[in-house]
Amino acid sequence: MQADFKELNDRIAEIDDLNRIQSLLYWDLQTYMPPNGSEARSSQISVLSRLVHERVTSEQIGKKLEDLRPLVSQMDSNSSEARAFVKIDSAYSKLTRIPVEWVSEFSRLTTRAHKFWAQAKAENNFELFRPYLENILEMRRAYSGFFTPYEHIYDPLLDDYEPGMKTSDIKEVFGFLRVRQVELVQAISKCPQVDDSFLYQDFDEKAQWDFGLEVIRKLGFDANNGRQDKSPHPFTTRVGAGDVRITTRFDPGFLNSALFATLHECGHALHSLGLAPEFVQTIFGARIGPGSGGASMALNESQSRLIENLVGRSYQFWQYYYPRLKDYFPAQFQEVSLEDFYKGINQVKPSLIRVEADEGTYNLHIMLRMELEIKLLEGTLAVKDLPAAWSEGMHDYLGLVPPNDSQGVLQDVHWSAGSFGYFPTYALGNLVSAQIWEKILQDLPDINDQIRQASFEELLGWLREKIHRHGTKYTAQELLISLTGSSIDPNPYIDYLTKKYKQIYRF
Amino acid sequence: MQADFKELNDRIAEIDDLNRIQSLLYWDLQTYMPPNGSEARSSQISVLSRLVHERVTSEQIGKKLEDLRPLVSQMDSNSSEARAFVKIDSAYSKLTRIPVEWVSEFSRLTTRAHKFWAQAKAENNFELFRPYLENILEMRRAYSGFFTPYEHIYDPLLDDYEPGMKTSDIKEVFGFLRVRQVELVQAISKCPQVDDSFLYQDFDEKAQWDFGLEVIRKLGFDANNGRQDKSPHPFTTRVGAGDVRITTRFDPGFLNSALFATLHECGHALHSLGLAPEFVQTIFGARIGPGSGGASMALNESQSRLIENLVGRSYQFWQYYYPRLKDYFPAQFQEVSLEDFYKGINQVKPSLIRVEADEGTYNLHIMLRMELEIKLLEGTLAVKDLPAAWSEGMHDYLGLVPPNDSQGVLQDVHWSAGSFGYFPTYALGNLVSAQIWEKILQDLPDINDQIRQASFEELLGWLREKIHRHGTKYTAQELLISLTGSSIDPNPYIDYLTKKYKQIYRF
Repeated sequence: MQADFKELNDRIAEIDDLNRIQSLLYWDLQTYMPPNGSEARSSQISVLSRLVHERVTSEQIGKKLEDLRPLVSQMDSNSSEARAFVKIDSAYSKLTRIPVEWVSEFSRLTTRAHKFWAQAKAENNFELFRPYLENILEMRRAYSGFFTPYEHIYDPLLDDYEPGMKTSDIKEVFGFLRVRQVELVQAISKCPQVDDSFLYQDFDEKAQWDFGLEVIRKLGFDANNGRQDKSPHPFTTRVGAGDVRITTRFDPGFLNSALFATLHECGHALHSLGLAPEFVQTIFGARIGPGSGGASMALNESQSRLIENLVGRSYQFWQYYYPRLKDYFPAQFQEVSLEDFYKGINQVKPSLIRVEADEGTYNLHIMLRMELEIKLLEGTLAVKDLPAAWSEGMHDYLGLVPPNDSQGVLQDVHWSAGSFGYFPTYALGNLVSAQIWEKILQDLPDINDQIRQASFEELLGWLREKIHRHGTKYTAQELLISLTGSSIDPNPYIDYLTKKYKQIYRF
Repeated sequence: MQADFKELNDRIAEIDDLNRIQSLLYWDLQTYMPPNGSEARSSQISVLSRLVHERVTSEQIGKKLEDLRPLVSQMDSNSSEARAFVKIDSAYSKLTRIPVEWVSEFSRLTTRAHKFWAQAKAENNFELFRPYLENILEMRRAYSGFFTPYEHIYDPLLDDYEPGMKTSDIKEVFGFLRVRQVELVQAISKCPQVDDSFLYQDFDEKAQWDFGLEVIRKLGFDANNGRQDKSPHPFTTRVGAGDVRITTRFDPGFLNSALFATLHECGHALHSLGLAPEFVQTIFGARIGPGSGGASMALNESQSRLIENLVGRSYQFWQYYYPRLKDYFPAQFQEVSLEDFYKGINQVKPSLIRVEADEGTYNLHIMLRMELEIKLLEGTLAVKDLPAAWSEGMHDYLGLVPPNDSQGVLQDVHWSAGSFGYFPTYALGNLVSAQIWEKILQDLPDINDQIRQASFEELLGWLREKIHRHGTKYTAQELLISLTGSSIDPNPYIDYLTKKYKQIYRF
């Protein structure tokens, strides 16, 4: 039996190798690839996608699973072997439902769609993107069809990113969250606005880079195990166990852009680097099928949000780092007190662009997207009517109407990549980050004092031990329940925001 | 039949995609990969090597070749189809002789050997590397054994890099070349030495980078189709048809190091980028099996040497570029005339390190290596006696004895990679570059005037039309004979050197 498990794992390791290579192909595409490399790159990515799909769904894996099934049924279902078996089995039975032709065609379609989305966004012309989005939507409907029966057509898509969660679960969470979050934004809107104009000054790129690097080094992102580069859209990718890469971008006229992206991606990188060595190149660390490493996208996102917001937008963090920041930008912050700086980086103000949204309004952007995605999939909204529905929804959720589609429905890359079902995990990640933070405050009562001294070892140790090291061994729900006693719960996040904003806005 | 050819070519295209991905894995390894990424990377490279080997030697390709063979035998043997068939057929029959276990083990062995070679070189301790080199040599003997009968045990190795050439051919060429080249070095050694001390000053890295980039842009290496990065050992790699990358390195105290490496790699890149669009992802452009793209390594090397030396160390080139170089480094060259600069960069002086050798002595370094490789393979020299044989040979060829093994037998990476049979192609490349240059002087009689004005369009156009566009459609010998009427001939190179050095050293 050990030999069978080993053989199964050797196949997983090989698939992991191919997926990590794929990660490097994407990383390079976004960072260093010359413009005319794109045709060869999309061919390379498509070949590798097919090889991976063929391998994950190979008869040899199916056979090995059938050989092991009776043995596993007699094992402790919590043993690592049994859990590994279940994970591989469910990935296999999920992916074998997807025809390889669908995989190839979807890869080709989304590669082309990305190009037309970028052009549509640049030229503010939704019509350029519309036919591609229509095709993507059709292919996504077909995809859900591979997983009938389902409770809701959105469920199979969601399951790729948030395994085990149903559309109905999220609707329930968001239903509650929306009411509370809108209340909070309204309460803030009645208070005098805090000043953040000092964040919009000239900030030398090199100094921004150096300050960001100083912070993430201290947080525990080590140059031996990863690197940071520039790309248009910040992201984190795991190229290998000791090779996790983040990217950031710079706005020379706005400090937050690079700073919080760097902290966000650092949170992802620390998560990825924390995988237990014994799980490297096993199913608990391997990326198989859609989604990513980590127990779920919401859990992943909780780790980036925790570093970006719970740590990186906290008062105690800036008690240490604001003087350092002033060393890099003495002229810009000469007249700005720590208190004003802290308030400025936490300003709440409804805005058009999701990635620039503050903690108070961010989730509202997500809810709009999920609502539209569901209507599109259900067929109650046609793609041609999407821009109007977007504007209406923005007005509804945030009281704003975008002046054009580039700043509206075309702003995000996700739909061009066919990533329906992904957005909700961003909001869930925010909720989970606050749930985990409550637990950290219990387990490490002096954590705020430690942060005040830029001492992050205990925090990182806790995250590694409780979350990072397990990879996908436990589901996100299992992890969260074992840590906090509860599944995803919006209350801690609302409590955290309310407490923070009451202090800042004095309502 | 068209459908059969298409299917065969689709398989070649897929193999090419996988090989280009492999190129990116190596490029990244040498440029940006963080130190702890090496374990995952060697696993990724090994998986991909196996996949490629399995595909090239697959039964489907064998079957398709057998289906097509009778049809091809009735075709014009010079047609593109027939030539493509022969190339695929010979790659297939060569690679199917190599057991996949040998491929995997050799990949594992050389990955480990590289590490111990690097350590041995750093610590000046040949013994650390010796056992690995012994194993590599044994595996290389076994490799030649897959190709029995052969005229000489070195032939199958040489054939990987210089298809169709025999050890006896090269011995004949080198026998003649050695006598003439030693005569030339001796004649020079009797003349007063030219000064090159001005090349050893402080040269700001950024200014070196900018000057180099200015030159290669003008030569035709376009930022849309490639990029330049830094790496410890300069190299060129083709990641895709519009994505050819070069690397260089900088010595802040020696101008030549980056400058001529940059020109050299630019020559390779222009060659690679010149492939006819209709040959992209066909056997004429694909990399299959050992060696590289291009008709042969000697032909490849002729293209880099032509740019580096025939163009880049010519007087007319510096008539244009020396004033530009002085703009970058005014203080360093204030007192140095164009004539003295030209003489300095062409100084001939026996030295220990191959990659730093001048045109006058370079080939002697190669001859020594080939002589030792042949003895090792024949079994007339044991690995343990290699350092002593090296020192003796250096004395014999160049009148120098290395003070230690790091500057002697351990200096080159090639043997740690198992690349026996590769070195001779460097010297052959020098010879071919001079043969091609003679033809260029006939076809473009005012080429030197054009170079004097940094006008390289006609030169690049000629190289593209006559050489680059053909990829591997013709063998190096065929190309050379059709261009110059002769196979590899050392006379043009000796004539070129003699004329140049007589003018510089006045003998």
